[in-house]
Parts: sequence; structure tokens; C-alpha cells
Amino acid sequence: MRTVYVNGEYVPENEAKISVFDRGFLMADAIYEVAAVLDGKLTDFPAHIKRLHRSAGELGMRVDVSDDELLEIHRELIRLNGVDQGMVYLQMTRGATDRDFVFDTDALTPSLVLFTQKKELIDTGVARNGMKVITVEDKRWGRCDIKTTQLLYPSLAKMEAKKAGADDAWLVRDGEITEGSSNNAYIVTKDGAIVTRPLSNSILPGITRATLIAYAEETGTRIEERVFTVKEAHEAAEAFITSASVFVGPVVSIDGVQLSDGKPGPVTTRLRELYIAESRKRLL
Amino acid sequence: MRTVYVNGEYVPENEAKISVFDRGFLMADAIYEVAAVLDGKLTDFPAHIKRLHRSAGELGMRVDVSDDELLEIHRELIRLNGVDQGMVYLQMTRGATDRDFVFDTDALTPSLVLFTQKKELIDTGVARNGMKVITVEDKRWGRCDIKTTQLLYPSLAKMEAKKAGADDAWLVRDGEITEGSSNNAYIVTKDGAIVTRPLSNSILPGITRATLIAYAEETGTRIEERVFTVKEAHEAAEAFITSASVFVGPVVSIDGVQLSDGKPGPVTTRLRELYIAESRKRLL
Repeated sequence: MRTVYVNGEYVPENEAKISVFDRGFLMADAIYEVAAVLDGKLTDFPAHIKRLHRSAGELGMRVDVSDDELLEIHRELIRLNGVDQGMVYLQMTRGATDRDFVFDTDALTPSLVLFTQKKELIDTGVARNGMKVITVEDKRWGRCDIKTTQLLYPSLAKMEAKKAGADDAWLVRDGEITEGSSNNAYIVTKDGAIVTRPLSNSILPGITRATLIAYAEETGTRIEERVFTVKEAHEAAEAFITSASVFVGPVVSIDGVQLSDGKPGPVTTRLRELYIAESRKRLL
Repeated sequence: MRTVYVNGEYVPENEAKISVFDRGFLMADAIYEVAAVLDGKLTDFPAHIKRLHRSAGELGMRVDVSDDELLEIHRELIRLNGVDQGMVYLQMTRGATDRDFVFDTDALTPSLVLFTQKKELIDTGVARNGMKVITVEDKRWGRCDIKTTQLLYPSLAKMEAKKAGADDAWLVRDGEITEGSSNNAYIVTKDGAIVTRPLSNSILPGITRATLIAYAEETGTRIEERVFTVKEAHEAAEAFITSASVFVGPVVSIDGVQLSDGKPGPVTTRLRELYIAESRKRLL
């Protein structure tokens, strides 16, 4: 049985509970981060903590725990649960209080929950065979740049993809791809440029995204940060997604339209290898 | 200390807890209802239960409890907590499972939480003096007709109103009012017509709204279900909101623009009295 961290205590997962009055439960007044674990260590940890502070700042949520304490909790959970590959999930809420749309952040004690999930991250079916995605209308709220737990729509969109025989959904606003249900979206054009939507309120500022763009630039790959349409995606040479736990995941078909030969493309495969190799150098 | 209902048990509020793996906590995969209590009894209970089933149906969420059981739990909480006036809050989630965007509804046991809140509903400051509202951009998701716990934005909008010295926020999409942060919005034109936005994915199908429209029609008051702009609101003779717990709440200023003499208007006051009188005839 997993050990889970809940508000200062390490408890068995079946005892990991929070108050029903927690604003994270009642009003989705909560933010989260998911850090990948490779070789029993954390990838991109400083960037996750930086984004956590940004999310909290945008919502006026207090962070009562230090970055060092957060690192210590992550490491302790990895140790207690013997995680070699997988993720550490962190959720912070504004705290518990009687239900009201009006709140007093200063009077509340933020809730903090972390747990681990074991998962093979390197040798995956997605890496070998690629993913099929379908496009679905993006009905999310207007601040998708804040990593909140308002994940009902992305979850439903992914279920819609599964029902259609695909692996994931790419979300579409005004005919243009925003991002995947839980990842950033990219296409590789026939002349070898990587295209991904620029940062705005419409997408999550992905940590893997930022790292990947930096790597690609270092290796001389052309990156175009611009919006792209569903039609462009259907006509792309390759496509892929990035996320903290998938790293770089090849996409081999979009809405049933096969890209190139229907196998993970060379640009994608090279970026995935590069990302994993570079990440391993900076584990914490 | 209040007694709270959590998954089949009546427990003291400080022991009312749910799993951190509940999808209501992790992904806002949860729906809710709030029924007002007058004279120790429930108002509009059948309509709330009907809407609960609609919300569940739209999300493919299972409802494992019968309507009779739900009524019994409501009544038991009112009795245990000695509620004469106030609300019963009900939240249902898809259940607890390891965190994943993909879910199997059939394999999950829905969570059910109910608690009471005591509150004076009849003789309120809002009824006597009216509310001030400000307009704020509507950044919510595309299915506001489903009563989910994705309430972060409405909560933030209401806080923005408080900071501006107002009582609530009216949300605006494309220059037109959708609804209030937790209520439906109405204006009364200078020639005495009540105007409110028609039902769509942009607003909650309010139970008080439906009841009020029926009452107004019975009494020969003209109701126009159409979109209205912020400008029309500023120029209205009266304005008001409806919600399960406020009933009919007069609005006396919008964005600092005083409506008529700045006091609750005659049409609003009459509708409020009518609504309360009629509700008292149908308590359960």
C-alpha cells in the first residue's frame, strides 16, 4: 500500500483523507504539479516549483511550505514507496472552511497533498507505436495557463477520444489547436519546422515544452511558436505531444488521418531521446 | 458542532472527510445542489433532484442513491442540526480511484456528501437594501448549464466584486450578461418587462428562475427571455438576481450606476414576496 502525504503526515493511502469542507473539493480552488521520477530521482523539479508559485500567485493562494520542504517531501515519498520510474503528484488548495464563494485567504491554512504513481516512462507503447488523437472542441475556462484542478473537461475529452478508438484528444478553439487534454501539442511541417502554439491564457506553460524548445534551438532545429489549424495538423509530416510524464510522445494519426507512414517520425524520435538524455543529467 | 453526511454515515463535521483520491478533489468531477430550508422544510426539492439527475446524465455519472433516500438524508440533517432557515448542500462525485484522466464509471462508487448551513433567508440586508454588482468578464467553461464544482472562477469574480466595494459580480460574454457568480440575472425595463437570458450552455438552468418565470406569467408580468447587454443593464429601471438561497435579490447598482432611486424596485419586491409565499405552500 502506498504512503501518501497529507498536511504534514505520511499515511497509508486508505487513510489519506481531507475535509469535505476543503475548497479544493467544494470549489476546485486548488493547483497541482506532476513531476516525473527517473532512476528514483526528480526531473525538472525547480521548474515545477516555480510554476506552482506562479499558479498560486495568479489565484492569490498562499504557499506556506518552503521549496526545500517540498523537495524533502517529494524525496521521502519516492523513498517510502520505492519509486524508480513514475510521478509525484502534488496538490495544494486554499484550505478548508465553511462553504462560501467569498473567502479570506489569510484566515485559511492551505492543504497540501502529495502521492506517487509508479509507471514505466521510457519503454512505453506510446514511444514505440505513437498515439492516435482526435480533435475536440476546447470548452475549458479562460485561464488554462493556471494549473488548477478544473480538469473535468479534459478528462471527458480524453474519454471521448478513447470511445472513438484514439488515445487522446487535441483541443480546438476557433479552428486552431490549443493543446492536448493533459499535454502541449506540436506538429512538424514537411520542411522540418516544429510548430507549437505560443504561450497565452489558452494553454499551460509546459515545463517539458520550455525545456524542449531550448534543446531544439541548441541543436539548430527550427521552432515556430505560432497557432496552427486542424487542417495543418492533418497535413503535417509528424506530430507529437510533450508532458511531464510522457516526455515527448509521438502522434501518428489525427482524426483518423495518418501522418506520413503512420510510425513515430524521425524528428520526434530524436527529440524524445535528446529530452530523456538531457533530463537524466539534471535529476534531483 | 454540525453533523455531516458522508457516504452513508452521519459524522461530526471535523470527522467529515473524503479520500484524497476522490475525483471530486483531484479533477472537479463532481456535481452539486443547494436546497433552501424554510420553516425547517425543503423548498423546490423535486426540482433540485431532477436537476441533479440531469447534471449526472450530462457527465455520464452514476447516481446510486434513490430520490427517496436523498429526501430522507436531507430531512435527517435538517433534524439533527436543528435548521429552521438555511440550506442543505449536496455534492456527488464520480468516486475515488488512482488519479487518471481516463475513468471507468461502472467500476467506481460515487461519493455523496451533504451538509447544512444555517442562514437567515427572509429578513436579509439584501432584501432590505439591495445589492451592488459589478460586471466582470465571463471566463468560465462552455458547459455552465451543468452544475459542477468548477467554481474557482465564480468565486474569484465574487472576490473581485468585494474588493471593488460591491456585493457580487455579473458575468459578461461578448458584451452581454450571462448570469451572476452564483445566481441568474434579470433586469426590469422602464416599461416594466422582465428580461433574462434564455437557457443555453452559458447559464445554469436555475430552479428559482423557472419557478419565478411561471409565477410572473401567471400574474401577467411580461417576461422576455433574451440576451441583454451591459448597457441595457445600466439603463434598467430595476434589476435582480434569483438563486435557491437568496430567492429574489434586488440589485440597486451596476458598475456604480445607480438604478432608479437606488432602492429595491417595486417589481422586484413584489416578485420576492410572491416567490416566498408560493414556496411556503410547497415545502417538503
